[in-house]
Amino acid sequence: MRHYSESALLTDLYELTMLQAYFSRGMNEPAVFEFFVRQVPGERNFLMAAGLAQVLAYLTGLRFEQEDLAWLRASGKFDPDFIESLRDFHFSGDVDAMPEGTIFFADEPILRVTAPLREAQFIESRVINLLHYQTLVASKAVRSVIAAQGRRLIDFGLRRAHGAEAAVLSARASYIAGFDGSATAVAAPLLDIPVFGTMAHSFVQVHDYETDAFATFVRAYPHNATLLIDTYDTESATRQVVRLAQWLQEDGDIRIQAVRIDSGDLDAVARRVRQILDAGGCRDIGIFASGNLDEYALQALVQSDAPINGFGVGTRMNTSSDAPYLDCAYKLVEYAGQPRRKRSSGKATWPGSKQVFRHYDAQGVMSGDTLTSQHDAVVGEPLLQAVIRGGKVLEPSPPLAEIRAYARLQMAGLPSALRALTAAPPYAVTVSSALHEATRLTDERQRALADADRVHWGG
Amino acid sequence: MRHYSESALLTDLYELTMLQAYFSRGMNEPAVFEFFVRQVPGERNFLMAAGLAQVLAYLTGLRFEQEDLAWLRASGKFDPDFIESLRDFHFSGDVDAMPEGTIFFADEPILRVTAPLREAQFIESRVINLLHYQTLVASKAVRSVIAAQGRRLIDFGLRRAHGAEAAVLSARASYIAGFDGSATAVAAPLLDIPVFGTMAHSFVQVHDYETDAFATFVRAYPHNATLLIDTYDTESATRQVVRLAQWLQEDGDIRIQAVRIDSGDLDAVARRVRQILDAGGCRDIGIFASGNLDEYALQALVQSDAPINGFGVGTRMNTSSDAPYLDCAYKLVEYAGQPRRKRSSGKATWPGSKQVFRHYDAQGVMSGDTLTSQHDAVVGEPLLQAVIRGGKVLEPSPPLAEIRAYARLQMAGLPSALRALTAAPPYAVTVSSALHEATRLTDERQRALADADRVHWGG
Repeated sequence: MRHYSESALLTDLYELTMLQAYFSRGMNEPAVFEFFVRQVPGERNFLMAAGLAQVLAYLTGLRFEQEDLAWLRASGKFDPDFIESLRDFHFSGDVDAMPEGTIFFADEPILRVTAPLREAQFIESRVINLLHYQTLVASKAVRSVIAAQGRRLIDFGLRRAHGAEAAVLSARASYIAGFDGSATAVAAPLLDIPVFGTMAHSFVQVHDYETDAFATFVRAYPHNATLLIDTYDTESATRQVVRLAQWLQEDGDIRIQAVRIDSGDLDAVARRVRQILDAGGCRDIGIFASGNLDEYALQALVQSDAPINGFGVGTRMNTSSDAPYLDCAYKLVEYAGQPRRKRSSGKATWPGSKQVFRHYDAQGVMSGDTLTSQHDAVVGEPLLQAVIRGGKVLEPSPPLAEIRAYARLQMAGLPSALRALTAAPPYAVTVSSALHEATRLTDERQRALADADRVHWGG
Repeated sequence: MRHYSESALLTDLYELTMLQAYFSRGMNEPAVFEFFVRQVPGERNFLMAAGLAQVLAYLTGLRFEQEDLAWLRASGKFDPDFIESLRDFHFSGDVDAMPEGTIFFADEPILRVTAPLREAQFIESRVINLLHYQTLVASKAVRSVIAAQGRRLIDFGLRRAHGAEAAVLSARASYIAGFDGSATAVAAPLLDIPVFGTMAHSFVQVHDYETDAFATFVRAYPHNATLLIDTYDTESATRQVVRLAQWLQEDGDIRIQAVRIDSGDLDAVARRVRQILDAGGCRDIGIFASGNLDEYALQALVQSDAPINGFGVGTRMNTSSDAPYLDCAYKLVEYAGQPRRKRSSGKATWPGSKQVFRHYDAQGVMSGDTLTSQHDAVVGEPLLQAVIRGGKVLEPSPPLAEIRAYARLQMAGLPSALRALTAAPPYAVTVSSALHEATRLTDERQRALADADRVHWGG
């Protein structure tokens, strides 16, 4: 039996009720849907696309199992003919997408699906669920990467991530964005992400003597122990680390890698700890900090030159705590060859299948994007690339290390003003005149149809 | 092969590094850990416990599979003897917990684990991950239940939930808190939660005529169609619904259940829609509203008496958007019979295994809690109850409907001031003098040990 996260029923019920209505009418012409973010939230100046690999796995693995069909029957909500039709249901369409790690902005589609209506519609809920979360986290985590200026960054977020999938996918998204690894063990066998682990306060507490706790740990990890020093009195613990290091010098094969501070005024504490370590001849013992960190805290610590070599960043990164969701959507833009758009108040969309072209200055820095109709000929780098044709993945997702390298390249091309952690003047995204014209024509056609509708019904 | 969310490796690597150190020293005396929340966040006046059923399933299913051991070997981080010892690793301890749906407050343990050190320590990461998220969501969702004053509430949050597990567990937690059901299909076969589904804007858009879209849907769902009316022009769509209803009257077996509004000023739009429906003789067609709703929006709509019969509440509920995490912890409070506590700045804990006693006034309304040592004799209702003894669940978790009924009873006993959506004067949680005394003794002992440690090391 599949795990529920891989079930076709991990979807909004309305996808199924709509499908049954389409089935009853025989409606299944080609449809185009696009995923985009309506607004860049919080103080972010850009977003970073992530989650495509999981979307591809979902689309290529999509099928209804016996147990799914059994529930559909038992629910009493669906006709036997419709349920029967789901036996062969799979994704046979095309997908174009921005590669993971691509920087993007509001209203720019990062995924376009072209498929028979029922397939393109059905996948909505889980495609959003997968793209939204990793994009949310990558876009948050990259801000810590900017702030850390090369200091080591480890994802510490499993415990307060919103469930198991969030824990694992935030390890992935933050690694893409430039983190050095994760504390979540399963991220290593599952995603080949480097994992790191130290000790908890409880480790110190179960030993009667703090020094004894440190000595036990160093003996178990003679080359890479990181000792947590803030359980009782941080300065006193640091002095114990110094004495332990001096005592261990006799055994040349043992070395304490770092100490970790998890509470208090990290800047002041780190300086005092550094002093004590240096005075004791422990210049090569690093200082690692954790505890409620986010990009703002990191920036303050780095700018004040606090002697901290690396950071554990958890909860605030993987819940994207200042903006825990993106205002994103997966919207129909074309059906049966006709562009479509909704005009709902505050949620209007651009019609027709689209492409985003990126422009660069002579130094290779991004100078503006053009959002236009898919077949409009614009000079620039087209950001949406073919990834699935006829239900088949064109080439497998690159290894995570390659995606991470691509994201780093993207960051190198980001205008420096957009690297600020506070709101900068917005990056130029131009909507082409072709797209404006397409919008006018779509509205005109839809209004004419609405008039005909009213006349028909006598309104 | 197990899904990764059920793997023993879904844990922080440090649990394993600590375990190896304990193993190397033969440390495995009984330990007591407690899960609690340090602070009630945002404008909440209380929290609601949830997630225990998933914790029990985790603890009773915990084991290392061949593939887990293979990774531990391949990682090069662990000794063969230690890895071998994990073959038989399972949870053999005791658990006491507040039943799901219990109202609780800062510093009150809602789960207490008593087990051999390695077991009690190892489970930390996933136990927090499971208890934190559902408690977060139940505590947020119950605010919408208060605000809705009996109007129907449906969880709409799958798409922007942080992954699959968050989607499913937020359907569960919000149902416990009093929601009527979820839009997430898999919540029905998996958790026996009622599920509901309507249509998306795309359903309207793929039809040339909006009325045609409505007619198709009503024919597919003749008894319970909910029609989405804000794709183009809400008033015009409402008039079409009226005409369609009049036309359908000829067929007595068809009835439109409701219309849904998903954008704009919901109060004003709902009033206008109600007028049009009533004027057209459609008094029994309900109005359902969705779109960026939370408890504050619901309260405003209900207090102004907007004619809305039910609400879809999604993203802001299942990301707990105003407070997307709880400052919670799972902390060692006792080892080898000795109470322990950390004194880290801002994160100090109460020592020893504890119990929470609740007091009630003559009307059965909660009048205060006492936080005290486990064996302290206090008159009142003890909130932590035995759920696992010797690794065996005493009785299976009650059906969800029973948990939901219990949560409703809890809400009936909540002091009315705490039902406010803004901060009320805090509920009285008294720390007993016995616990103060235990804290003093623990600190005294720990300071004496620290002095001995310094003397021993010549500090």
